[in-house]
Amino acid sequence: MSRIVVAADFGGTNLRSALVDANGEIVDRLDVRTPASAAPAVILSDIVKLFRAISARSPVPPVGAALGVPGLIDADAGKVIIAPNVAGFRNLVLTEPIAAELGIPVFIENDASAAALGEHRFGAGRGTRNLLHATLGTGIGGGIVVEGRLYRGAKGLAGEIGHIIIDPAGPRCNCGSRGCLESMVSGVAFAERARRIIASGASPVLLEIVGYREPTAADLHAAAKAGDRQCEAEIRHGGHLLGLGLGSLVNVLNPEAITLSGGLLAMGDMLLAPMKESMFSIAYGPASGTLVRLSTLGDEAGLLGAAAVAFERVESVAPQA
Amino acid sequence: MSRIVVAADFGGTNLRSALVDANGEIVDRLDVRTPASAAPAVILSDIVKLFRAISARSPVPPVGAALGVPGLIDADAGKVIIAPNVAGFRNLVLTEPIAAELGIPVFIENDASAAALGEHRFGAGRGTRNLLHATLGTGIGGGIVVEGRLYRGAKGLAGEIGHIIIDPAGPRCNCGSRGCLESMVSGVAFAERARRIIASGASPVLLEIVGYREPTAADLHAAAKAGDRQCEAEIRHGGHLLGLGLGSLVNVLNPEAITLSGGLLAMGDMLLAPMKESMFSIAYGPASGTLVRLSTLGDEAGLLGAAAVAFERVESVAPQA
Repeated sequence: MSRIVVAADFGGTNLRSALVDANGEIVDRLDVRTPASAAPAVILSDIVKLFRAISARSPVPPVGAALGVPGLIDADAGKVIIAPNVAGFRNLVLTEPIAAELGIPVFIENDASAAALGEHRFGAGRGTRNLLHATLGTGIGGGIVVEGRLYRGAKGLAGEIGHIIIDPAGPRCNCGSRGCLESMVSGVAFAERARRIIASGASPVLLEIVGYREPTAADLHAAAKAGDRQCEAEIRHGGHLLGLGLGSLVNVLNPEAITLSGGLLAMGDMLLAPMKESMFSIAYGPASGTLVRLSTLGDEAGLLGAAAVAFERVESVAPQA
Repeated sequence: MSRIVVAADFGGTNLRSALVDANGEIVDRLDVRTPASAAPAVILSDIVKLFRAISARSPVPPVGAALGVPGLIDADAGKVIIAPNVAGFRNLVLTEPIAAELGIPVFIENDASAAALGEHRFGAGRGTRNLLHATLGTGIGGGIVVEGRLYRGAKGLAGEIGHIIIDPAGPRCNCGSRGCLESMVSGVAFAERARRIIASGASPVLLEIVGYREPTAADLHAAAKAGDRQCEAEIRHGGHLLGLGLGSLVNVLNPEAITLSGGLLAMGDMLLAPMKESMFSIAYGPASGTLVRLSTLGDEAGLLGAAAVAFERVESVAPQA
């Protein structure tokens, strides 16, 4: 019987959990609504309840548990420093109280870092030693695997690839800087581009798609697919800039592969073709051989990422049976 | 008696060598002119002769040797892929033939990567687990230490921090890309800035310093120190851009410290104060605690870097006595 871990993914809407075996097979699943209360005691108690419920269904006692959280994490201290989209998650030590209740080791990790480890162990990054994973969604996140292990850096912050500067004269980012990759290419950035196109009156196609709603990156793509040249040019330019950012990272990290996940991948080659072109045009010397692969984990990426973190942590204490 | 390695540094002018002990003490030194011939057999034979001569002076038999080379290196294969400034260094396997002659393990490494490991083991990076080292000279190079070991990436290319894009509309770089860090802040970039200032007739001070020579970065600094506002503004702006590049890398790598070496450090706070300001303004969350330290290894950085590589490689086979 393969070893099993409890994996969980803390999102803004749902707190998802699963039992995952060492091959990355999801043995069972259980989701609840994300705790509505911002009180740490409520959050902790809801997580403990969920972990108890899913553990009770396991065919063998789980050897460990891990939770992916969208935010700044001090993984070694088991602490959420801040998770901007989750009320109550601020300087909150999670792992100790949960582990005390469950009687198994519990770990937390930044969700994008966990996703990188998930791709490396179970997904598109299998077989690589050094991997860069980029999550292309509302924001831009990332995770780095070095010599087969998750690279966390000094304070668990490594992989914040959305906040590399690619244009000092670029737009203001949510983080306060100017010209961050995320401020120029992301769900939020494309939505802002769509808003401006509508305001300029340049695209009747986009206006008809959006109506009186707030526009989204998906609207920009829909208008481009419907033949709107300006919307298509915005996506292609975004792909070009994304390639400059990823190409810069290739020159610094020289990974075997870059894996990509996230909602922006729905834009397909309209985004990815110019991305690859600019990325490989700046990749230096042998780095031009870097592989680009799309995530194979789909909706389960968050859970499998957390599972990969749990297995890596447990194995680093007791080698795999 | 401490173990001793042979360390060497292959420069455009001199081929330097030293005996170095495990504490980073230079026991003896021997330099020769860099081989004038581009014939691989001559280069190899000159290196072997030098290594034999310096080894013969060692109080104990050296346990290994390493050579730092300015270029693209496949360290695991012991091969120089290309070293632009050294004729004959192209797809040249160095380590096997030299090791066969000397009877000890021989390694090569990119000189900036070796410098990073040298700072980590013997210099300003001592005591860190994760370190970024930047060499600020004619060009911009770098090296990355992860969890106490040199990070080489897939093909030994990791750390090419001079070729991250910081402005898509920036000047053309020697590598062919546009707006690389090196194309905007480096000895070459500052010299180009000085050339333009002279051509524009805007700085009598700079013109008097340079006369009919080709201007250098040092001339730009001398004019700035003599009170020329435009020259000072150029250096400060360069520092600002350098900070954006290093700050981006801090967000990706989250090192405990950044160490700096190279000729541009002679510009002092005129370069470093705006560098730190922009670097810390974009550093994300806890990364704002990253230490910035100047190299303490001075002229010996190249030799001590190579020595650190030799010790790391030898220890990875046989643990330290």
